[in-house]
This record gives sequence, structure tokens and C-alpha cells, in this order.
Amino acid sequence: MDRDISQAVITRLPRYYRYLGELKDKGVERISSQDLAIIMNATASQIRQDFNNFGGFGQQGYGYNVEHLYSEIGKILGLDMQHHMILIGSGNLGHCLANYVNFEKRGFIFEGCFDSNPELVGDYIRGIEIMPMERLEDFVRDNNIDMAVITIPKSGAVEVAKRLVNCGIKAIWNFAHVDLEVGDDVIVENVHLSESLMKLSYNWNHSKKA
Amino acid sequence: MDRDISQAVITRLPRYYRYLGELKDKGVERISSQDLAIIMNATASQIRQDFNNFGGFGQQGYGYNVEHLYSEIGKILGLDMQHHMILIGSGNLGHCLANYVNFEKRGFIFEGCFDSNPELVGDYIRGIEIMPMERLEDFVRDNNIDMAVITIPKSGAVEVAKRLVNCGIKAIWNFAHVDLEVGDDVIVENVHLSESLMKLSYNWNHSKKA
Repeated sequence: MDRDISQAVITRLPRYYRYLGELKDKGVERISSQDLAIIMNATASQIRQDFNNFGGFGQQGYGYNVEHLYSEIGKILGLDMQHHMILIGSGNLGHCLANYVNFEKRGFIFEGCFDSNPELVGDYIRGIEIMPMERLEDFVRDNNIDMAVITIPKSGAVEVAKRLVNCGIKAIWNFAHVDLEVGDDVIVENVHLSESLMKLSYNWNHSKKA
Repeated sequence: MDRDISQAVITRLPRYYRYLGELKDKGVERISSQDLAIIMNATASQIRQDFNNFGGFGQQGYGYNVEHLYSEIGKILGLDMQHHMILIGSGNLGHCLANYVNFEKRGFIFEGCFDSNPELVGDYIRGIEIMPMERLEDFVRDNNIDMAVITIPKSGAVEVAKRLVNCGIKAIWNFAHVDLEVGDDVIVENVHLSESLMKLSYNWNHSKKA
């Protein structure tokens, strides 16, 4: 049913999920597309169209059941699956991501962390010991790790990505400012902070001229 | 000339800028759209179309002058402007961003940092003392600060954004997982890490079913 969903709709799903989660936490049981539109600063027709991609969820005259909708969107997003992830790079960004406990609520379990800097090896992040890069392959195989987060500088990232793919990693969340070359069967999601900052800069620069 | 440029082209500009910067650092003086396309895993016709939005830059039979193109795209992105920024939230993510020296190369000067946690106040990030939130307004006014980076949890972010806008901040780089309500004259660029992770999850989930 959800094979041909546009990337634009998919990009909006996490935001729906966030708002519905907040409503659920506040004890709201049902909501109309109109009210959801007001809260989300969207239009009711877009919300209805987006949800129709997944079979609707709503009932005429009742609106949406918040908990049901939240859980269904979570399933569409794959948040009911469990993934076992490791962190490559144990600096400030690595610490920040490892400590973001919401990731575990969404099925991403932090299992291990690595760093090439011998001074960091043996330290702990959230109670997990930082390992040297030499142990990467064995650890991935022995612990059914299927995902890696790369938070090292771009100079080392391409090589590390190759090692990760070779030992069976299926998804990479990449914060290194470089395009990784992996096969089609490996999912890569990039967070290029520097590009986000340049986009801010562009929009700022052009709003001032307007 | 560049008023009607699509958001898709703008989103690609930072990537062009990154690749051209790498070519420049390697001493490459000129490059054809074909060669650039190969390096960037793009098509030569898209590159030519994109650059035509800004007046071309290329010469028939010569290709593009790398240094000139790099500098022109930098100007379009507003990277020749100087911005004075503060950091709200001095945890791991704040440390990571403050230490990312490339930001200063792109005109974003890190001037001060704040935290509401009294235990962090008085510590230093890159030689700059962490200040209590009470000093925010005075510091912004006295130091011509025009931009803020928000790296605090979402519970406090909406209130802080209001204070920032009230004291004259013109752009916010927002890492809090909440939509900020600011006026039309304030630029907001969001980095919602959790939404990026959900997008990875969606693509992973659906590639496995395929």
C-alpha cells in the first residue's frame, strides 16, 4: 500500500509523529484534521491527503484516534523494529548522540563505541567502554550490530565506511562531511551540519536584499 | 538575477561549494562540467543548468575556473558576510559546534555561550566563558550579536527563542526538537536529528520489504 509514497510525504511523517506523541503525552485521545492543522501550522487538506497515502486512519465526524495514529505512523517509520548501533568517533558529537535517550525509545539501541585516538580508548560513554578501531569487525560480528553512526572527520570516514559495509553493517547515519560510497543495499542518511549552516546563510543573505 | 532560484538548486549549492573547495585545495585550476559531474556523481547537464541560474561562470572549451566559481558560489551563499553568533546551551552538542572551526572560515564568529545550569556557568568553551542566561540580553546588545545557535532541550527552546528575537537576533540555527515561532524577519534553520534518524529508519524498513 505504501510503495509509491513521495519523498515529500515521508519527510513530513516524523513531524506528524512528533506532534502526535506530544498530544498523546498530554492525554488527548482524538483530534480532527482541522485542529491538528492549527497546531502544526499546516492545512487540514494536506494532513488528510498525507494520511490517505497510508489508508486514512480517520473516521468521518470523529477525527483521528491519537494513540492509534501515533502507533501506525511509528510502524510506517519502522520504529517498531530494533536496531543495534555502534558509534564511530567518541568526541563531543558522539557523546551527544549516545546520550540522546529518545533514540532507544525509537528502537535504536546503543551497543558500542570506537575511537582511533588511544587517549579516548578505555573511557566510557553512558557506561559503555570506548574501544580501539582494531576491534571493530569482531565486535560487529559478535553482537549482531546492523547500524553505525559516523562522527569522525571526513578524512577517515570513507575508509571506515568501507570497513563497516564489509563486516555487514546495513545502515549508516553519517555526520562526516563527505559523500560515502557504499552499495545500493546499504542505507545512508547524511547530516551535513555545515550545509545546513550555508543554507541558513543563503536565506539570510537573500532576505536582507529583498 | 538570482531571485527566482528554486529551493532544490539552493540545496545543492553547499555541495558544489564543498567539492570546489576540495579541488581548490588540491591545486586544480579548472574543470569541465563533465569531470565535475563524474567526481560529484551527478550529470553534466544538471551542473550546467544549476550554474546557469547564476549567470553561468563557464567558458566554452575551457570549463570552469575553480577558484572563481568557488568564490562566486561562496558569495551567493553569503559566506563573505560576517555574523556574530552565540550559543544557547553548553552541553556536548554546544561544545561540538563551538569547536567546529570551519564555521569561522565561513563568516560565523563564535562570540559567547550561555547555559541555565549554574554548574556549567564559569566553565570555558574554546576559551570563552559560559555565561548565565540572565546576561543574555545585555551581551547581545553590547556585542552586536545577530545570530544564535539553540542546543537546549525543547522544553526551554520556545521561550528562549522569544527572548532572542526580542533583543534583536536575526537568525537562529535551531537544534531543539520543536518548531520555533518567530516573525517573518527572523531566519530559522532547523536541524532535527531525531527526524533524520526516523527518515533513515523509514528507508531501511522499506528497502528490506522490497
